[in-house]
Amino acid sequence: MTNNNVKEPLLSSLNETQKAKRLLNKRRLHRSRSAPNTDLVPSETQCKESTPPTTSIFQNLHPNHKRVAIYLAVYLCVGALIFFLVRDQIKGTKTDGVLDALYFTIVTMTTVGYGDLVPDSHLTKLLACAFVFSGMALIGLTVSKAADYLVEKQELLLVKAMHQKAGSTGILRELETNKTRYKLFVVFFLLLVLFTAGIVFLVTVEKLDVIDAFYCVCSTITTLGYGDKSFSTQAGRIFAVFWILTGTITLAQFFLYVAELNTEIRQKELVKWVLTRKVTNLDLEAADLDEDGTVGAAEFVIYKLKEMGKISQEDISLVMQEFEQLDVDDSGTLSTSDITLAQSS
Amino acid sequence: MTNNNVKEPLLSSLNETQKAKRLLNKRRLHRSRSAPNTDLVPSETQCKESTPPTTSIFQNLHPNHKRVAIYLAVYLCVGALIFFLVRDQIKGTKTDGVLDALYFTIVTMTTVGYGDLVPDSHLTKLLACAFVFSGMALIGLTVSKAADYLVEKQELLLVKAMHQKAGSTGILRELETNKTRYKLFVVFFLLLVLFTAGIVFLVTVEKLDVIDAFYCVCSTITTLGYGDKSFSTQAGRIFAVFWILTGTITLAQFFLYVAELNTEIRQKELVKWVLTRKVTNLDLEAADLDEDGTVGAAEFVIYKLKEMGKISQEDISLVMQEFEQLDVDDSGTLSTSDITLAQSS
Repeated sequence: MTNNNVKEPLLSSLNETQKAKRLLNKRRLHRSRSAPNTDLVPSETQCKESTPPTTSIFQNLHPNHKRVAIYLAVYLCVGALIFFLVRDQIKGTKTDGVLDALYFTIVTMTTVGYGDLVPDSHLTKLLACAFVFSGMALIGLTVSKAADYLVEKQELLLVKAMHQKAGSTGILRELETNKTRYKLFVVFFLLLVLFTAGIVFLVTVEKLDVIDAFYCVCSTITTLGYGDKSFSTQAGRIFAVFWILTGTITLAQFFLYVAELNTEIRQKELVKWVLTRKVTNLDLEAADLDEDGTVGAAEFVIYKLKEMGKISQEDISLVMQEFEQLDVDDSGTLSTSDITLAQSS
Repeated sequence: MTNNNVKEPLLSSLNETQKAKRLLNKRRLHRSRSAPNTDLVPSETQCKESTPPTTSIFQNLHPNHKRVAIYLAVYLCVGALIFFLVRDQIKGTKTDGVLDALYFTIVTMTTVGYGDLVPDSHLTKLLACAFVFSGMALIGLTVSKAADYLVEKQELLLVKAMHQKAGSTGILRELETNKTRYKLFVVFFLLLVLFTAGIVFLVTVEKLDVIDAFYCVCSTITTLGYGDKSFSTQAGRIFAVFWILTGTITLAQFFLYVAELNTEIRQKELVKWVLTRKVTNLDLEAADLDEDGTVGAAEFVIYKLKEMGKISQEDISLVMQEFEQLDVDDSGTLSTSDITLAQSS
């Protein structure tokens, strides 16, 4: 029971990526790190108990990007089909039937709403209402997934490119520590590319002057969409279908990352303060959970993490309830005898 | 050092609200809970060290609602003033100069962008671009604060109303546990009121039929704003100024709470699974940080909270670094002698 591996993760100097991976694969690592003590626990129970629930719950916590992409594709297809079928009840600047239906679906779901195509019957008005609400929800789902995927891909490329060079672990650690900053930078760069592409396209294809093109780009990616400047040609609408969707999602993602970075900076300030302030005897007294007059490592970690606001008293109480149930012999500690007693009862 | 107060918070059955309050006032409570041991620590150091940084950081973490309200008021005044000055460079359906400028500011900042008033010069187009970006950021800030404030007020009223009745602590606990559900309910109710008010107003004042009114309400609060139906009368725009701002913010807040509730439900599932799964000897081995062959309460709490994903290995490592620095006599525990040694060195 007293091998060094057990304490190692607490004090190890793994780089951040390794740590993150380790945390994800925690249950798997547990089994590989120390050979199973077959005299202590039947190995089948172990496997049956732990594997299936974790994976299914973690899949729920991180629904994959593929699923979101499928939802988006289904939504766009259904939208294009329906608005194509009711195309005679939509008035405004028209080009190609299917293209206009898809364009109208995207202008609606992103809430840009230029008004260059507007519903012209009660049916189409109600359809537009249904599509804008479901579209908003879907865009929200996409924002929380899309750029994360992009950033992961980008990171992987960067890591591969630097794999052979010296100091790559240093760069990796840097990336991990400044992850939000880095994500923000990637999204900002993408935003610049989309901005430029939009302006160039509007100037060359839709023949707007530069200020009008800039104005149309701003009014579109913010989903403002006054509608005095929009995409009126067939080529324009083909471009718009892709550009509006990526542009509005990217800007929303950008704002999300700014907020995230802001929270993170404040959280780090608090952590720094908690870790640098002088520990007094009163702190020791408060941190001494088992009342033995000294503060062990685990007690100290709980006390400080609580002070940082990372865990709450409620979290602790919940686990303590379980601890007391498990501590069958009421010794104040859990040992193999408690487990044996629990299994026999 | 071994009074019961020290252990009490871990095992206490305080109701949830009391717990939350306690956590907030933690530093204050520490001092009142047990009389300061003046022989152990000079009380001036204690006060100097702990009070100022916490309050300033917590103020940063929870910027007050007043500040957001002031930003919003300043933004609207500046917007109305500027667009009033350039009113001749804005074309469309006009009523009163100042009212139209304010209405245009709000329609722009919320990204509704009907297009019933549109910029008609390069200057006004660039101004609109500046106002839509800053407006979006401000709306984002407002969304994260506005309804929280509303819900707090509502809760306070509810608590006061039930103060005399039996079982009020039960209701309080219920409120706290289902806080997100409750917030969602309040915002949903507010949304219904705004929806109804909008439809009634559009039917009676702007003389739209019911379907058109519903369509205009949907297209406005989702910030779609095709612009085929909007507020064209003076009375309509006075109403719109208040209604658009509250409507769009409330819907955004509603979506935010849905996402929050979703995350919470998944988190709770994970917590439940972590707490109900059978603890094996392998778990005990992994949780045994100080390698003494048994798992103390604090070790068990850390192990379980890590499994729930509430704390990461990085959090623990950071605190452990400080622990090792503080453990001057390398005993593996912190005691008053470590503090004394640290102060003298």
